[in-house]
Amino acid sequence: MSALFCGRALPALRSALARATGARTLTGTRNVGGSRVMEGKLDRFGGVTVDLGDTLFTPDIGEEEFGLLLTDSLQRWRAEGRVAVWLKVPVAHSRLLPVAASQGFAFHHARGDRATLSLWLAAGDSRLPEFATHQVGVAGAVLDESNGKVLVVQDKNKMKNAWKFPGGLSNLGENIGATAEREVFEETGVRAEFRSLLSIRQQHKHPGAFGMSDMYLICRLSPLSFRIHLCTQECLRAEWMEVAELARTSDTTPITSRVAKLLLYGFREGFDKVDLSMEELPAVYTGLFYQLYHRQLPESYRHS
Amino acid sequence: MSALFCGRALPALRSALARATGARTLTGTRNVGGSRVMEGKLDRFGGVTVDLGDTLFTPDIGEEEFGLLLTDSLQRWRAEGRVAVWLKVPVAHSRLLPVAASQGFAFHHARGDRATLSLWLAAGDSRLPEFATHQVGVAGAVLDESNGKVLVVQDKNKMKNAWKFPGGLSNLGENIGATAEREVFEETGVRAEFRSLLSIRQQHKHPGAFGMSDMYLICRLSPLSFRIHLCTQECLRAEWMEVAELARTSDTTPITSRVAKLLLYGFREGFDKVDLSMEELPAVYTGLFYQLYHRQLPESYRHS
Repeated sequence: MSALFCGRALPALRSALARATGARTLTGTRNVGGSRVMEGKLDRFGGVTVDLGDTLFTPDIGEEEFGLLLTDSLQRWRAEGRVAVWLKVPVAHSRLLPVAASQGFAFHHARGDRATLSLWLAAGDSRLPEFATHQVGVAGAVLDESNGKVLVVQDKNKMKNAWKFPGGLSNLGENIGATAEREVFEETGVRAEFRSLLSIRQQHKHPGAFGMSDMYLICRLSPLSFRIHLCTQECLRAEWMEVAELARTSDTTPITSRVAKLLLYGFREGFDKVDLSMEELPAVYTGLFYQLYHRQLPESYRHS
Repeated sequence: MSALFCGRALPALRSALARATGARTLTGTRNVGGSRVMEGKLDRFGGVTVDLGDTLFTPDIGEEEFGLLLTDSLQRWRAEGRVAVWLKVPVAHSRLLPVAASQGFAFHHARGDRATLSLWLAAGDSRLPEFATHQVGVAGAVLDESNGKVLVVQDKNKMKNAWKFPGGLSNLGENIGATAEREVFEETGVRAEFRSLLSIRQQHKHPGAFGMSDMYLICRLSPLSFRIHLCTQECLRAEWMEVAELARTSDTTPITSRVAKLLLYGFREGFDKVDLSMEELPAVYTGLFYQLYHRQLPESYRHS
């Protein structure tokens, strides 16, 4: 039982709640065996979800009243064999969060004007899925095949002025290729078109990722324009550099150097040596599309 | 000005706050031109961070008092040219969240026992980095090269009993290959070893990703054991199936079918045709390691 209730007798509180609920309707709750419990939505994994934004009792419910309602609801859900509880809480109702935390709930995630808390009820470790664990960054290696030059930049605010490919974080819902094209344009003013995926880096506890992981993807692009208009807010300088020079110089990052060698290999011996091609396919459930990247399949295997 | 204050005269509140701060120390605040403002940590991007878990005034500060402190602090930060404010709020102090929200703050993210709110102060759209946008799922295609059979499962709780590769979500901080090995073992009892990355799928608004995006990676593994011990909690059945049959059957998902064709191509003509190899490299800043995936480079290009 939560420390929030230690100063008062539970039976007295419970009968006060019963009286209160007699005087007004606590929408989103129901009476079960003399106790008032919250109504939740059951999911197919055996979890129950209560959205405090949907339940009309929350605007004026007291913290002690909510605590009791939650205690009795949890007792009921456990008795019914529910495996977990999700509690969605609009920021306006945040005074109820410490009550939920005192009964074992923790933040699962929060965005904008609402937080989602969770509590695992079943035996053993929680099997609830984690919230998003990765930020996605994309860099664009724009190679001009007519002269073997690649577009490189130097970031502002860095200790070492290393040459690298323009790039940055994907916005939510943005495809990998679209991020590459956008970042190249924002940083250098060069218009370019996604061709293939070249390399992926996974890094945990990434600085700047709020303690989470980083997935960094480097794409090959073809230029559609060539004139550089430097974004001086982000970049110190930008230029078209011989890919062979970028592959050789120490004035770059280890990953840029590695990808420059890949690009050089592809430029000299055919990009099919280094490319993952992309295909857009319809998703069965959502009606949306997904992007699939892999090595090109010979025609004879595509319809095997 | 927030609606929270509309019923009371601000000057009266402000002098009450001044009196209160005379009587006790508000640690984590300072007096600037007659107003009390919060002390924050400045970052190199021009943002300021206040952690309410570090500031000793929060346990007993009133909501109105905090609202006034925040109003005056924001005015000060704007005057100082700060571009953004990060507010870290332990769940125990959640009653202060609606106050912050009423002054424009929104949830940036939350995990466990704390939430982080943010407010963009500078002109134009927010340039604050988003929190993690992707969950990462990994499947393991375990191919027995001695007989061309691959390990496939059918999930429980699905409409259609399609054959697919065992897999699941990465835990926070878990490498791609480690997830593949763990999921294969958990679902089938088969021990297998990561070999290469074969394919990547990016999908937005993924069902089950809490409105976020999904990055799904399919790896090639070599079996270390062969006896199947089915996890009946997750799987309906599991078996070793000819990869040529999996590439042919309609009793599978589109992605599994595609990857089966890739596997068949690699099995018949050499895995170098389809693999992205992995290399672990040290990260400059953190002292940790990252994993880099790309097409194998010929020796002559590795040291160009």
